[in-house]
Formats: sequence, C-alpha cells, structure tokens
Amino acid sequence: MTTLQDCQRLDAQDPLRPLRNLFDLPHGVIYLDGNSLGVCPKATPARVAQVVQQEWGQGLIRSWNTAGWFQWPQQVGNKIGRLIGARAGEAVATDSTSVNLFKVLSLAMTLQAQANPARKVIVSERSNFPTDLYIAEALCRERGWTLRLIDAAELPTTLGPEVGVVMLTHVNYRTGAMHDMAAVTADAHGAGALMVWDLAHSAGAVPVDLNGADADFAVGCGYKYLNGGPGAPAFAWMNARHATRLGKDLWQPLAGWWGHAAPFAFTPEYQPAPGITRFMCGTQPMISLAALDCGVDTVLAAEPLGGMAALRTKSLALTDLFIQLVEERCAGHGLSLVTPRAHGQRGSQVCLSRAEGAYAIVQALIARNVIGDYRAGDTQQPDILRFGFTPLYLGFEDVWNSVEHLRQVLESGEWQRPEFNQQHAVT
Amino acid sequence: MTTLQDCQRLDAQDPLRPLRNLFDLPHGVIYLDGNSLGVCPKATPARVAQVVQQEWGQGLIRSWNTAGWFQWPQQVGNKIGRLIGARAGEAVATDSTSVNLFKVLSLAMTLQAQANPARKVIVSERSNFPTDLYIAEALCRERGWTLRLIDAAELPTTLGPEVGVVMLTHVNYRTGAMHDMAAVTADAHGAGALMVWDLAHSAGAVPVDLNGADADFAVGCGYKYLNGGPGAPAFAWMNARHATRLGKDLWQPLAGWWGHAAPFAFTPEYQPAPGITRFMCGTQPMISLAALDCGVDTVLAAEPLGGMAALRTKSLALTDLFIQLVEERCAGHGLSLVTPRAHGQRGSQVCLSRAEGAYAIVQALIARNVIGDYRAGDTQQPDILRFGFTPLYLGFEDVWNSVEHLRQVLESGEWQRPEFNQQHAVT
Repeated sequence: MTTLQDCQRLDAQDPLRPLRNLFDLPHGVIYLDGNSLGVCPKATPARVAQVVQQEWGQGLIRSWNTAGWFQWPQQVGNKIGRLIGARAGEAVATDSTSVNLFKVLSLAMTLQAQANPARKVIVSERSNFPTDLYIAEALCRERGWTLRLIDAAELPTTLGPEVGVVMLTHVNYRTGAMHDMAAVTADAHGAGALMVWDLAHSAGAVPVDLNGADADFAVGCGYKYLNGGPGAPAFAWMNARHATRLGKDLWQPLAGWWGHAAPFAFTPEYQPAPGITRFMCGTQPMISLAALDCGVDTVLAAEPLGGMAALRTKSLALTDLFIQLVEERCAGHGLSLVTPRAHGQRGSQVCLSRAEGAYAIVQALIARNVIGDYRAGDTQQPDILRFGFTPLYLGFEDVWNSVEHLRQVLESGEWQRPEFNQQHAVT
Repeated sequence: MTTLQDCQRLDAQDPLRPLRNLFDLPHGVIYLDGNSLGVCPKATPARVAQVVQQEWGQGLIRSWNTAGWFQWPQQVGNKIGRLIGARAGEAVATDSTSVNLFKVLSLAMTLQAQANPARKVIVSERSNFPTDLYIAEALCRERGWTLRLIDAAELPTTLGPEVGVVMLTHVNYRTGAMHDMAAVTADAHGAGALMVWDLAHSAGAVPVDLNGADADFAVGCGYKYLNGGPGAPAFAWMNARHATRLGKDLWQPLAGWWGHAAPFAFTPEYQPAPGITRFMCGTQPMISLAALDCGVDTVLAAEPLGGMAALRTKSLALTDLFIQLVEERCAGHGLSLVTPRAHGQRGSQVCLSRAEGAYAIVQALIARNVIGDYRAGDTQQPDILRFGFTPLYLGFEDVWNSVEHLRQVLESGEWQRPEFNQQHAVT
C-alpha cells in the first residue's frame, strides 16, 4: 500500500518539482482541471501589464513594429512547434481551435478535390470533441462531402477509396484515451487519405511528433496544457511538404490580410503568403497572445530537465498513482475506470464513471477545493468525473490528498447534500 | 484667422472635455491615429489585471460561470449595439473583423442562393479595405460567385438582377469618405440585393443606425474608435428580421460550439443557436475581451453628454478646424485635401496627399510626437498622410499644435532628412 509519506518522498525526489514555482496556484487548491483551463503562470500578470501599459499605453500604434507585435503569431507558433515535433516556420498561433480547424480541414479537402475528386468523405470519431464535428459537418455541407462518424475500433476497416480526410483528436476530451499518432496516420495515408490531428489535449501534455508521424495538418488549443489563459489563441500546423508545393492558387477560405503575401501592399487581390502564414486571417488579440506566450514558456522551461519526455514520465506516474489510490482507498463505492490503463493509450487525465452522483461528487470535491470536472453521459456513455494531471504544477502529495478527499466525500455521503445536486453550466 | 487662443477657448467651452480624463495619453504626444489603434483607457490596466490575477489566477475554471465569462461576447456586443443602432441581442463581440465578415457574407450568400439563385455577384468598392475584398474573393471561389469591384460613383448603375450582395465599408480607411448608409442600403434593397456593412472606421466614430437604415448584416472593429486594445475582438450584427426567420437548417460555415444552441449538451450534430449567437464559433480570448469592454465603456461614457451625436458634432468641429488650419497655415506646400469637405460624406479622419514626401513627412511628425500615419498610393490614388480625430481624447489645441508641427516640418524641410525616408512596415 502506498502511503502519504511515500507520496511526499516522491515529491522530494521529483526533478521537475521546481517547475511548480513558475505558477501562482491559489492557496489550498488542488487543481485537477488543467486539461480544461491551465493555471496562471507567475510571469503572466507582469507581462500582460507591460503589454497594456507600456507597449499599448505608451507605444501606441508604433508598437506594431517596435514591440514586434506583427511577429508574435509566428514566434509563439515556433515555440509551440518545439512541443509538437514541428520545425520553425511550420506552426502559427492564431484565432481559435474551431476557426483553425476550418482552415486546415478546408485546405485538406481542396487538396483531395484536386488530386482525387472521388474522395469526398471525412472520417472522424463519434466521441470527438463536438466543435470539431460541427466544423467538419459545416464544411461537408459547403463542399458536398459526407461526414462519417465511427467508433475508434472501426477505424482500420472504414478507410475505403471514398475517404479523403481522417480527422481525429489525439487525446479524447472525455475519456483521456490516446491514439497512436504514427500508426493511425500511416493507416490513413495507406488508404489514400490525408490526416488532420486536433492536439487540444496533447500539446504540452504528451510528447507529440507531427513530422515523425508524417501527419498532414494539425490544430490545437492554447488554454489547456499550454497555460495561455481563458480563451487563449490556438495554433495551426501544416506539413512542410504541403507548404512547399502549395502555389498561389491554393488558399484556405479565411483569406484575410494577415495571411497575404504582402499585407501592407494593400492590393485588392489576395495572394497567399508562403507556408503557414497563409493560415492567418485577421488582426490577432495581442494581450491574450502575450499571455499565451508566457504559458508556453512554462512548458519550455522543462526542456533543460528533459522536456516533454520527462513531463510524460511524471504525468504517467501521477495518473498511475491516482488510479492505484482510487482502487485501493475508494473501493466499494461504485467507481469505474474509463481511461485506458495502458500507458500508450492514455493522455494526461483520468476519468471515472459512476452509475449515479458523478455530478454531485465533483461539486462536493470542488467545495473542498479539489477542482476536477464533470461530463454528462448519454445512451452510449456513462456520466464521468474527469481529473487532469498537469505535471508542471502537480505533485504526488496532491494526488494523495485528492483521493483522500474523494474517499471522504464518498464515505460520508456528503455528495448527496442538495447543494451539490443543482446542475448549472459547466465547462 | 483662427488663433491658438481661439482653440484654447474652444477646449475650455467643450462639454466633452472631461472624457479626456478617461484615457492615459502618453505625455507630450498628440495622437492622431485612433482610427488605427485607439488609446488605452485608464480603467483598462486594472481591469485586465483583475481578470488575469483574480478571475483566472484565483477563480480558475470556475470563472467561466462565477465571473460570467460565457456571457461576455453577448454583453459587450450589446454595449457596442448601443453605438450602431442595434437592439439588445442583435450584436456579438467575437473573433476578428475578417472572420466575422466571412460569417455574415457567407450567410447573406446562402440567403440569396435560396431566394434568388441567379444572383451570384458581390459588389464592392475597389478601394475597400483589402481584407474585406480578400474574404469576398475567397467566398466567391467557394460558391462560384463573382466579385465585382467598382468605384463608389458607379454604385447606382451597377445594381442589376445578377447582384446578390452589396458589401461596403461605411467610412473608407484611406480617404475618410463616408457613404450614406440609409440611401445605399435602400438602393441595394431596391435592386434586390442584401446589404453588408463594415463599420471598422464608423463604430464609436460617427452615429450609425443599422436598424434605421434597415441594413442586413454588419461587422466592425474593436481596436480603432472603440479603444479595445491591439487586435481586440471584433463584432458582428444581423438584422432581427433575418434572425427571426432563420431556422435550424440555416448556418454560417464557421459552425463552432459557441454558436451551438446547447454547447454543453456536447451532441455530435450541430444546431445553430437562435439569433446572433450563431455567429459565435470557438472559445474567445477573455483577457482581450475584458480590455475591449473597458474601451467600449469610454464611448458609452459620452451618453449622458449627448452620446454619439455630441461626439459627432465635436469630431466635425475638430476635422473642420484641421482642414481650415492646414489651408491657412500650410498653404503653398503642395498639400491637397483627399477627404470630402461635406460633413455628410466625411468620417472622423482627414487625409492629405502630396506629390512627394508623404511618408517622410509622417515620419518627421512622429519624431515630433505627432502621430498620424501614411498610406501608399498606386496608379489610381496618391500617397496620403492620414490623421484620425477621436473626439473622446483630442481637443482643439491638439489640432492647432499638430498643424503647427506640420507647418514647421514643411517649412524647415526637415522631412527630407535621410532618417525619415527609410521605409518599413507601417500599420
């Protein structure tokens, strides 16, 4: 049996422990929701204040040049690129994940329409994050394509000659299940399809190697494991082999001036910029982008300590420990593990289901300052309690304490109190 | 002849003078570029710090509900609505102007495709802001439509039975020329076309009455006269008569989860939210949105003093004075007025052209802390010096001093110094 003292010893021995000091965690909170909104880095308030008061307030319009605002989407994109197996110039930080998915998916469809016009099906998972499915559905309506939704297990058998694009989220937002990016991409390519990945729950959470997997396009989120702040700009990536051969006639439809080859020439005709810059559209929210830059820096701060590989080792140790302690200390309370136990199939979160009370248990935990979240089930999926483990700022004692709170909530029956059973919107 | 003392007297009598105290103007700067990036309100740094440190830093994920983040796009949209003749629930603050234009323009095209499928032409001005033309061009490629670019004078004669949408920017970004919104909208409707307005240089600058003009759709910018900060979120508006009849089958293609009728039901199928909320797509940058909220508040602060009508009266007085003083005090230096002299045809900026040296003169003025900007000409248009007049924070003495600096730059020939003739990117 693992003890509290064992957990404290693990923290004392943890080489990544100093990274916790980069964050301003609220006193007494155990935060298991960094998969939804990451914690505020200590550096962010001062940097944001500098952008507002100095760069905007004093520099005014001049700061587009003097503070380098114009280059931030590419600069932050390059930093994110280091976390996802991209080379410099391949990724850009801009807009939202949904908007970026629209851009990359529409371009993937255009590429197939030119090369293989009979391929007019997008394959995705039924359990993908809904906004991805909505964007795909909308593009299918625009282009006369079909969106085919499958379960993950059906993937190998569904890739026929009619499939143009496979679009998947690498780590499932509900269950924490992770795809084998290289294998799935190879399957898609083997079947003649292009591969689009959503890295919303991967970037900064698990090692990703887009070029190693030879993926085609990717998008991802800035406000989860990248700690960029609420609604931080997202990112887009394109394989250099597409960037190289894309001529000036191949655009994505959100052809705004920031994606123009010469935005300040103010010519009436659009001409896409080379490479990933053509995925830019309008002017970007610089204050939020500065906060994203600070957030990405917290993940890059792990590089001298082993980078994403070291973070992954700790993340798996944290989630393994959580699963073990729940099974040891909360046995008999009807909890089931939803997240795959195999390391290769798991992201950086653990989801539990329970026949009843999942929502109320999460609320009771939040009242104890243990913040996870709840996702409702449906006819196919159970209600779940979702716990994200960000190795940058969580330790092993945090895991112990969170399970101890969960045990007390279940054993005392306090989750049955009326105040924990009034549902309202959750993120 | 108007004197400096006359200008000082005008400031002393100006009922809007106290609004200047809402802003943190850099010491010694005369800022004539609020048409490109508005000044930082005094309230913004503290509010942004509160969002970062308290709402995000301490509240974390809970702030989506407890701080009301989810409602901000609609709340800020409603505030902007008061400045553009919109009713509550008709406007939303979100994404960029370019992205929003894509949404409203694509939906206008869909409406026409359903009602009048033979109408497959978008009419716009050749001198419209380029990103608007790029977005229209991209949508025309998607839908098999044609973008027809005209000069403003050709507008009445070009509206044939093939025109589906007229898309114009209300106040021209280069020249400051303003369309008669009601008359042009009536012409478009009379010809069977839908009317889309870009209010980038209008919202917060001139009175706008979208409902009074019975326009169909509009978009606009948050970082110019609304003082929302660099790259602040933009806004979108839709006439309630469209919102009322739009069923669940009529979407705009950026169909992200924030525009879903029930985003937290996480259903795999998209169903658009009622009304303007269907123009939302992905998660919004809350820190930048908080800054936009502060900026909009500075314009709303004029409401007890007469609102947009009072701001307009002062704006015209400022631009009239600038034109008069330039003509009195800078005569013989080759400057020509580009902006229309008639009040009904002028926004809140004044543009001057000169056969040579426009860029260097602007640089020399900036070196004297008089900040305007430069826009290059082409075969059809001359190079221009562009000066924006935001009545919230500019006074009549500022106008006097800016013209005096311009006079000195021209008379001394200092604009011919090499350092003012090295071109680089400008906004």
